[in-house]
Amino acid sequence: MPHASPAQSKPTAIADLKTHPRGRVTVCGFVETIRDHSAVVFVIIRDKTAAVQVVADSTDETPYTEDLKQLTIGTAVTVTGKLVDNKIVKLGGLEIQLEELAIASIATSPLPIDEDTGLDKRLDWRFVDLRQPQNTLIFKIQTLLEHAFRLLWIEEGFIEIHSPKIMASASESGGELFRLDYFDGHAYLAQSPQFYKQMAMAAGFERVFEIAPVFRANPSFTSRHDTEFTSVDVEISWVDGHHDVMDLEERMLVAALTAVKEQFGDVIHDTFGVDVVVPERPFPRIKHADAVQIVADRGYSIPRADGDLDPEAERRLAEHVKETHGHEFVFVTDYPPAVRAFYHMRYEDGSGLTKGFDLIWKGLEITTGAQREHRYDMLLSQAEEKGIGYDEIAYYLNFFKYGCPPHGGFGLGLTRILMILLGIRNVREVTYLYRGPNRIHP
Amino acid sequence: MPHASPAQSKPTAIADLKTHPRGRVTVCGFVETIRDHSAVVFVIIRDKTAAVQVVADSTDETPYTEDLKQLTIGTAVTVTGKLVDNKIVKLGGLEIQLEELAIASIATSPLPIDEDTGLDKRLDWRFVDLRQPQNTLIFKIQTLLEHAFRLLWIEEGFIEIHSPKIMASASESGGELFRLDYFDGHAYLAQSPQFYKQMAMAAGFERVFEIAPVFRANPSFTSRHDTEFTSVDVEISWVDGHHDVMDLEERMLVAALTAVKEQFGDVIHDTFGVDVVVPERPFPRIKHADAVQIVADRGYSIPRADGDLDPEAERRLAEHVKETHGHEFVFVTDYPPAVRAFYHMRYEDGSGLTKGFDLIWKGLEITTGAQREHRYDMLLSQAEEKGIGYDEIAYYLNFFKYGCPPHGGFGLGLTRILMILLGIRNVREVTYLYRGPNRIHP
Repeated sequence: MPHASPAQSKPTAIADLKTHPRGRVTVCGFVETIRDHSAVVFVIIRDKTAAVQVVADSTDETPYTEDLKQLTIGTAVTVTGKLVDNKIVKLGGLEIQLEELAIASIATSPLPIDEDTGLDKRLDWRFVDLRQPQNTLIFKIQTLLEHAFRLLWIEEGFIEIHSPKIMASASESGGELFRLDYFDGHAYLAQSPQFYKQMAMAAGFERVFEIAPVFRANPSFTSRHDTEFTSVDVEISWVDGHHDVMDLEERMLVAALTAVKEQFGDVIHDTFGVDVVVPERPFPRIKHADAVQIVADRGYSIPRADGDLDPEAERRLAEHVKETHGHEFVFVTDYPPAVRAFYHMRYEDGSGLTKGFDLIWKGLEITTGAQREHRYDMLLSQAEEKGIGYDEIAYYLNFFKYGCPPHGGFGLGLTRILMILLGIRNVREVTYLYRGPNRIHP
Repeated sequence: MPHASPAQSKPTAIADLKTHPRGRVTVCGFVETIRDHSAVVFVIIRDKTAAVQVVADSTDETPYTEDLKQLTIGTAVTVTGKLVDNKIVKLGGLEIQLEELAIASIATSPLPIDEDTGLDKRLDWRFVDLRQPQNTLIFKIQTLLEHAFRLLWIEEGFIEIHSPKIMASASESGGELFRLDYFDGHAYLAQSPQFYKQMAMAAGFERVFEIAPVFRANPSFTSRHDTEFTSVDVEISWVDGHHDVMDLEERMLVAALTAVKEQFGDVIHDTFGVDVVVPERPFPRIKHADAVQIVADRGYSIPRADGDLDPEAERRLAEHVKETHGHEFVFVTDYPPAVRAFYHMRYEDGSGLTKGFDLIWKGLEITTGAQREHRYDMLLSQAEEKGIGYDEIAYYLNFFKYGCPPHGGFGLGLTRILMILLGIRNVREVTYLYRGPNRIHP
């Protein structure tokens, strides 16, 4: 096979080959399989977008003969050749007849993991694991989810904040805090941007968002816990109540799921067997007391002494909502103060209930939100009631001393959304590099 | 003044009043000034968008008489009244004749800082400081910069990553690392996402971006140093050299500065006295050796033993480029390996120079980037040459064992961009909540 041209053409994404003119083409990617059929060698090359069959002559001496022999699974290559239609090829009815082969870097053989490798070892070699198309897909979807959120926020005039992750004391509760050596003293890692996004309200930013890491020194090894994850946070001012905050979350989820369904609905169906459903607005909203009753009517008595919904109760409630409203989502609202943070605003109707809410999607909680208490005296007394010392939160209480609008917001775990959206049960599968009590490698 | 209607209308952003129908309107914001002219009281209310004059009757008994007396500077209020034109009012020739006043939260008087307060105390009360329109503006601009970057990345098919900030060892050099207690052992905070964005290349993600915090245990108190800042990071595969990487950075900066000039050019000029210039492409690119010569020709001999450009040399070079090319930006390329990280790729032309570059904007460095070495053996030997032990970076070297495309990227400090763009000399002014060796409050 002659060396067609010394000039390498610009690489084409493999998914774009079907519309590429037949003839000379260059693609880049990893060697996925090699099948040696004596006279010809078939090599499948995969890039981020798709895979293509490359057919190489292995009888005659060619410019690529030596390189072809060196190929291993995983080797990164640039391939130039003649793109032709070939109906019997499964990968899109196309193949590339090899003319030039450039090896970027050879993979040691064999790869350290294969499709039968257990999760823990796959995480040791996460970068190889992520090459699996279904794994790359997860992060393409994550990218689109975040982009859809941000487009909505920008359209609605939000300001993006980057709140500090290094703090002098706890952001919410004293537990699960990572402590670090900070010059001659100590500091802590933020468990959430809660206090600092509220600070933006006192600063007059009115509407803010942040997508950033949060840190929890939680020793759990469950499939849902990690010590570092990405939190999607918003906070908005001049709300009339927590329903304004829920409205915002609905707009975000509808925008994101619309985008995901449009761009990835089919491939998500084919890969994960899940149909992406764009939810109708408004989402069902059920008061906590009613939710408890619904769950009881379905034969489940919540074992928690504080009356908060446990995971089984959340599942039962979701079943009820699915049956009665045909909806995957349900907001549970108006929790009693015992099960909510001190900064959740309370009704002044004598009920003492909070303007807090959770959002449950397919039976799993994805959000805790609330209208916040923005009045200094109320906040101080609610903190005292919860046994939180003034000194601990003095800097936070200051935010409410010099005028602060009524406001509310929520946090959303990005991995939690991906797990529920794709029906993936382990947070490790939807995290770029999972961090847990005994995993900080690689 | 009669109570016009019990139903409060939906709040209007103050900047939108000029196109709002005259008549009843509601705005929300902070009290900025109060002037009591016996018969009438003038109150300036500011929201995120602008300020407006509210005129209140203080002779007759009105529904707001009691609340009006309570107003202090900084108090958060909702104001409803009659929007009228009034040519003598400086704030847009408009005023609101007060009908209803609702106090959201009263500010303690006086505010803890005023326009004469020094920076350190302003940072103690950062949320009050951020209410200054020029400070809020900084974060609106930051939001737009990031949005413009992300729009470009999305258009070019990038995947967003969230790389872990908790690591088992250093990401680059052993110095300036924060150590944290991690269950029964220790971990470190990421100084950069460098290694993990390169991992994405080994994972076949091809093009990634991340905007996230990085942590540096740097004890400096200068106006340019902090211990936590937001880094804008990209990495792309299948590059032909570092010039492909510089091309990407040019596209990003042109997109971002075009957006900023369009949306905020006038207000930046009026507020900061700076003209936003959208740079012409390509940016000038000068080899390090030539840059050293240019600086020498301008009468400055670089004092650094390793020959790297120091800040004064960068300023002189920028002057030269401004004079000869009329350009605010200059890439300095092809640094000698002594002044670059071990993972910068080197030319194989015998010069031994690296495919590394810096970007200098108005005389200040904003970026370090490079094509990276993606070949295991080369990387190992370059690390050894720099005295970096194998064990320290074994997990990183693994990324290059199983096939890795040629790739490159760079990091960009978000605050650095804002400082240069707006002519602000202290990083504390452009950081939402600055963190330094002796500041982790609030």
